[in-house]
Amino acid sequence: MLDKRNVTTLMDLYELTMSNGYFKYGFTNKTAVFDVFFRNNPDEGGYSIFVGLKEIVDYILSFHFDKEDIDYLRSLNLFNEEFLTYLSNFKFKGDVYSFPEGSVIYPSTPIITVVAPLIDAQMIETGILTYFNHESLIATKTNRIVISSKGRSVSDFGARRAHGIDAALYGAKSAYIAGAASTATVMAGLKFKIPLSGTMAHSWIMSFENEYDAFLAYAKLYPSSPIFLIDTYNVIHSGLMNAIKVNKEYLIPNGYRLKAVRLDSGDLSYLSKKCRKILDDNGMEDCLICATNSLDEYKIQSLLQQEAPIDLFGVGENLITSKSNPVFGGVYKLVAIKNQNEQEFTAKIKVSETVEKITNPGFKDVYRVYDKENNKCIADFITIHNEEINQNEVKFIDPNKPWKSLSFKNCSFKKMNNLIIKNGKLVYEIPSIDDIRKYVRNQIDNELREEEKRFIMPHIHYVDYSVSFYNLKMKLIEEHKYNG
Amino acid sequence: MLDKRNVTTLMDLYELTMSNGYFKYGFTNKTAVFDVFFRNNPDEGGYSIFVGLKEIVDYILSFHFDKEDIDYLRSLNLFNEEFLTYLSNFKFKGDVYSFPEGSVIYPSTPIITVVAPLIDAQMIETGILTYFNHESLIATKTNRIVISSKGRSVSDFGARRAHGIDAALYGAKSAYIAGAASTATVMAGLKFKIPLSGTMAHSWIMSFENEYDAFLAYAKLYPSSPIFLIDTYNVIHSGLMNAIKVNKEYLIPNGYRLKAVRLDSGDLSYLSKKCRKILDDNGMEDCLICATNSLDEYKIQSLLQQEAPIDLFGVGENLITSKSNPVFGGVYKLVAIKNQNEQEFTAKIKVSETVEKITNPGFKDVYRVYDKENNKCIADFITIHNEEINQNEVKFIDPNKPWKSLSFKNCSFKKMNNLIIKNGKLVYEIPSIDDIRKYVRNQIDNELREEEKRFIMPHIHYVDYSVSFYNLKMKLIEEHKYNG
Repeated sequence: MLDKRNVTTLMDLYELTMSNGYFKYGFTNKTAVFDVFFRNNPDEGGYSIFVGLKEIVDYILSFHFDKEDIDYLRSLNLFNEEFLTYLSNFKFKGDVYSFPEGSVIYPSTPIITVVAPLIDAQMIETGILTYFNHESLIATKTNRIVISSKGRSVSDFGARRAHGIDAALYGAKSAYIAGAASTATVMAGLKFKIPLSGTMAHSWIMSFENEYDAFLAYAKLYPSSPIFLIDTYNVIHSGLMNAIKVNKEYLIPNGYRLKAVRLDSGDLSYLSKKCRKILDDNGMEDCLICATNSLDEYKIQSLLQQEAPIDLFGVGENLITSKSNPVFGGVYKLVAIKNQNEQEFTAKIKVSETVEKITNPGFKDVYRVYDKENNKCIADFITIHNEEINQNEVKFIDPNKPWKSLSFKNCSFKKMNNLIIKNGKLVYEIPSIDDIRKYVRNQIDNELREEEKRFIMPHIHYVDYSVSFYNLKMKLIEEHKYNG
Repeated sequence: MLDKRNVTTLMDLYELTMSNGYFKYGFTNKTAVFDVFFRNNPDEGGYSIFVGLKEIVDYILSFHFDKEDIDYLRSLNLFNEEFLTYLSNFKFKGDVYSFPEGSVIYPSTPIITVVAPLIDAQMIETGILTYFNHESLIATKTNRIVISSKGRSVSDFGARRAHGIDAALYGAKSAYIAGAASTATVMAGLKFKIPLSGTMAHSWIMSFENEYDAFLAYAKLYPSSPIFLIDTYNVIHSGLMNAIKVNKEYLIPNGYRLKAVRLDSGDLSYLSKKCRKILDDNGMEDCLICATNSLDEYKIQSLLQQEAPIDLFGVGENLITSKSNPVFGGVYKLVAIKNQNEQEFTAKIKVSETVEKITNPGFKDVYRVYDKENNKCIADFITIHNEEINQNEVKFIDPNKPWKSLSFKNCSFKKMNNLIIKNGKLVYEIPSIDDIRKYVRNQIDNELREEEKRFIMPHIHYVDYSVSFYNLKMKLIEEHKYNG
């Protein structure tokens, strides 16, 4: 699956028209700080999962315009040759800080920070956001589905409903990182070395004279772990009976057992119970039941509450599109800038007409704060970049209740934003997909408070400010008050 | 934007495990008929728009396994060398029929039909569906947004919220076909030669000492059609005032006029009216108002009902993900099969546990039926393939009211399924993107009944059956009745 794309032009036109302006006005020596953050967890959840760093890093490091790109930009009659030559030779020269891939993340904290020449930072806006938003979306959704399944296996069967090839491919990767056991998408298995799984389509059964022949043929071909799709004609009266028959007449005599039957329509609770009983009555207690058909975390939760004896869930469209909430609203905002001759960044704020859209100004650090007693994560803590914190007692401000006098005591602090790219060069080793997957699992199982994991009105994670950062933000808001 | 991908492995594993079985059991000479159809219009709309044929054709014609793919498949320990060699040499050898790209389409009619050796037909399932579902989804959503805007310009600003690169790229194409005026995504402009548009980001304004300087700098750079983003600090008291000032002090003296102001937050109805009044009071009646901020067809409809004087809509996440309904449920089902020595196809049906999931069996044709008096489309009509119809009076059965005796009179019939690929070779010329766009527009403006275009409880299009086809379907359902 050869992939030699140059995706540099995945940008909004305004990134080029603005960069052309920065170039023309001599802003090439200004250094800007941009934050990637998001405003709400999908599905009103308690947290999200950040995935996409590997693709973002690859994209930034290989960012360059080919001759075809430059020729096209010339044809727009917006840019002069000087700027086009500048673009022809362009390489990203800045720094990138980021949370580790697989991190649990919360709204309004900077997850990725780009510190770079203004043009460099501006031109990578859309590329970063597209990867960040898509992969974090699918990881966050899959994590919810995995949590709902309470240890049962969840597989990604979504490629055909994905929004194109990349959505299927990187969606499968994001789902695996977030806890899916496998994917049906061959390309994802090939590219990311993640486990593949699959059963059979109705067309297999319909290609044979009858259902029994179809199951038997399949059993002979893949005797070690066959899964039969039993709803082509009638689950109980046809599919299940033929499955039992093939198990008895072919698999058992040859030293094998039917691995599972799959239900893809009808009332999955009713049918799975009925199947379980009949399977058990036929000595097939070890035969699993696999269910598919527009499943999501709510349907799985409901099936398990009804005690539906389902062992394996194949999830398609709801996972691969995050159907109930298909947008991860990550944004990329300028938060500070400095001229060539300046030592310090000047923090910038966007006040906006919508309170929710006011940005957190300045170059910042983010710490995850843990209770030393149980190692649970109790808050995220935003400081000014390189602000010193005295870990014994850290005063902080809850921006929702700024009048309170609060401090972290008996806590440990983990700095979340790591330097990934320095002066355009990679200075960080991105872990393997399997290690990222383990990191997700460890956070969910050991670090997260249970109250954040529930689907209905989860605990809202505290994102607290250092006193210095709070004062900076308030000062800037004050400065932008209009004299109305 | 070099793109040399081989996307052949965008398949579900079961397509390979089943094909391996067909190979092993000597089914290579069976010919199968598979239909692509869908079950429901997104957003409970009255119709959908089919886009994606160009990508489907390219995908089928270039379908081949590279050495890397074969090596990976070997590593799965599922396939023997004979089958792997077969795959190495595999080329699609069948026929493909399809509706023209850009067609208005309705549930449960076959939009694409593949008539091919069973393995050939089985292996292209996921690829066809992924393109069909994604592009038809975005086209259908965009068409709704375009209809809601009542002739005002709609632009795609969605790349950053798309589900990966392909979703942004092919989403932009599908949106343009369905009536969007332009896209902000440079890559789509480059690849499909569709118009680009863009304004400025808040970062442009924040990179300057103040908003006035930022607008002035932009006006000097792009004086012929500048659009200023006016909500960085305060729309009325800051953004609009500075826009008027730059228009008066720089643009007008130099023979230009401000093209538009853009609102990206706050109450768009209130602010647009307020802006319109102030612009008009300052002699800027020709300055347009552009609105962005999570718009969709319902918000646009509401804004226009409130008489918000907005001229240009930039639509992002709701368009590029079809947020309210991000899944186009196209499926690919076996409907007929024949052995090498047989003349006739044997029709196949999937009865399923869910009535909605019962398939329409057999190799079929689809006609669009027009009332000769007003040339409006009144129904789709499904027949058995090559069934002769007497256009003077065609008896038909409404499957929802099969007891009625009905016939089309004074109607014209257009066959919708054209032969696109014959014996693995392209035999059809896919129209240009602009011609497909015109075709969409013509159907919406001239062929569709108004009752099908409304968003709330639209008229449900008639999909009628020929008597022969109805009898075939009933016969097969009868055969699969279980003896319960």
